[in-house]
Amino acid sequence: MNKVTIKDIARESGVSTATVSRVLSNKGYASEEIKEKVRSIAKRLNYQPNAVARSLKMDRTNTIGVIIPDISNPYFMKISRGIEDTLQKSGYNLIFVSGDENSDKEKKMLQVLTEKRVDALVIATSGGNAEDINRVKNSGIPVVLIDRKLETDSDDLDLVVEDNIEGAYQLTNYLIKKGHTKIGVVNGSLVSSTGTERYLGYRKAMEEHGLDLDPDFIFNGHFTQEDGSNAVTYFFNREEKPTAILSFNNTMTFGVMLQLTRMGLQIPDDILVASYGEAEAAQLLSPDGIVSIKQSPYEMGVKVGEILINRLVRKINKPVTEIFEPIMNVKTKEI
Amino acid sequence: MNKVTIKDIARESGVSTATVSRVLSNKGYASEEIKEKVRSIAKRLNYQPNAVARSLKMDRTNTIGVIIPDISNPYFMKISRGIEDTLQKSGYNLIFVSGDENSDKEKKMLQVLTEKRVDALVIATSGGNAEDINRVKNSGIPVVLIDRKLETDSDDLDLVVEDNIEGAYQLTNYLIKKGHTKIGVVNGSLVSSTGTERYLGYRKAMEEHGLDLDPDFIFNGHFTQEDGSNAVTYFFNREEKPTAILSFNNTMTFGVMLQLTRMGLQIPDDILVASYGEAEAAQLLSPDGIVSIKQSPYEMGVKVGEILINRLVRKINKPVTEIFEPIMNVKTKEI
Repeated sequence: MNKVTIKDIARESGVSTATVSRVLSNKGYASEEIKEKVRSIAKRLNYQPNAVARSLKMDRTNTIGVIIPDISNPYFMKISRGIEDTLQKSGYNLIFVSGDENSDKEKKMLQVLTEKRVDALVIATSGGNAEDINRVKNSGIPVVLIDRKLETDSDDLDLVVEDNIEGAYQLTNYLIKKGHTKIGVVNGSLVSSTGTERYLGYRKAMEEHGLDLDPDFIFNGHFTQEDGSNAVTYFFNREEKPTAILSFNNTMTFGVMLQLTRMGLQIPDDILVASYGEAEAAQLLSPDGIVSIKQSPYEMGVKVGEILINRLVRKINKPVTEIFEPIMNVKTKEI
Repeated sequence: MNKVTIKDIARESGVSTATVSRVLSNKGYASEEIKEKVRSIAKRLNYQPNAVARSLKMDRTNTIGVIIPDISNPYFMKISRGIEDTLQKSGYNLIFVSGDENSDKEKKMLQVLTEKRVDALVIATSGGNAEDINRVKNSGIPVVLIDRKLETDSDDLDLVVEDNIEGAYQLTNYLIKKGHTKIGVVNGSLVSSTGTERYLGYRKAMEEHGLDLDPDFIFNGHFTQEDGSNAVTYFFNREEKPTAILSFNNTMTFGVMLQLTRMGLQIPDDILVASYGEAEAAQLLSPDGIVSIKQSPYEMGVKVGEILINRLVRKINKPVTEIFEPIMNVKTKEI
């Protein structure tokens, strides 16, 4: 069946399209009789008011576009929940698209969302799209960067991120103080600021303790569970084994834990696992335990929501930068 | 900064808006000199072609709207991946919204997506919106029901589901044959077809073996991790404890495993866990093991993608019903 238009309603009602339009938009004159007739025919034909056309006039759609690099990662879902809980009260709805840690895909999705005329854009960028993101902003759509910075300057964009260098630095320091020097590092995507900053935090701690960076103990992944498992396989195929593994996001950590378990290794007795970001499944380990940096995704999402309300409702235009501090989380027995 | 329109470009270029429109849409005549001028000014002003207006004329947006009840459940994310992998080749992009197992929220999101003029809708319904979903379909937008049926007849909608009754029946039979009669059942949302059908499969097996349904061993949840944990607490607060727990989706199963572990119980030695849907984290248990029904979410998504290509590209309009068979998955040692 084709989409029903006001032309169909006009034909059925025996009035002009202009009259149908006046009745359905509640603007301008029409007799009660005509109003009733047009409305009942619209209903019978299942007419869907074309809000695309409406939004062209109103210039707002009450939707916020959210681009995240991995739509299945609970971290980003908690951020989204925080944004949604905050914005729903003001009548905004969220639509999501996935960047898949892939610049090209993200570039296309930026296009899709601007074409959908979202009122604002929230993005945890997969990297490489600074120019496109700035262009969206310069076209008049507010943009909030969440979790990840652009590779170029972005002083005029709102920014809600963690202090990744500090978190990774604390985590590495903890391992070193516990006597670990052979640390297998599982990097996330190095085209994202979270990937590079966490690696820098690790380097800073290693260098301060005069420890060498052994390339054999560094695995570059892309924040996926598979990367975590592959990193473990990679480290344990080398002659010298690590005594600890340092993984730079929750999803890779889950992959690390799965692979170590498959290999019959006990965490933390046989090998210590340290994670930037909590992995809830670690509670299933017996004894419970990995060392982790606790993140605050829900609170970060709430902050994004507040920034957007200030921009969209209160019309405040000053850019905001909010940096969340890392929290060390040591739950394991004697580590 | 306000959004740049073709009026701004016309003013800057010293030509009419009609000319700007002809140049930017590549339709109709304009001299090479004018074309170049208009395009360079459009670029300098960061003009975003208003695809909303364009799509009104073309009547297609190349986007597919996906409504899922829990955007953080890996099961639905694998379905989405299957849809996306299949449709991307034909130039379609996916936008997601979350129904949150909440009829009212879902109703609103149905409105949002039809307003965004998606070319088709894929929905795993949270329940209670049969009328609205049929209305979308009758307005000319193809609708595919994934994972969950409507509560009313929907013969003219495409449907890709599992045989939930059979899966739950097999799982329950397995437990009974292993000698379990005190089975704690964790139901999902009973306004969704997956929730009710899995419960029916369990009942069928119990009744065939002449076993009573003890209401104290039935906990009604909503497919969330929290429900799984709460169900365990509920069962173990009663005098008579279950010897097995039967959970009706992957997310609740994870909650079940977490809570049992927190209580110091060993799976499967102290208590058996059976799950409709695989919970990957079960591999962290030592010894590995829960009993589960393996689902095929990716393959289901691919099927949805194929149906949509037939509808949108090949213009085939016959409704399709595809039912995926359950696969029993017993990995544990001697259960």
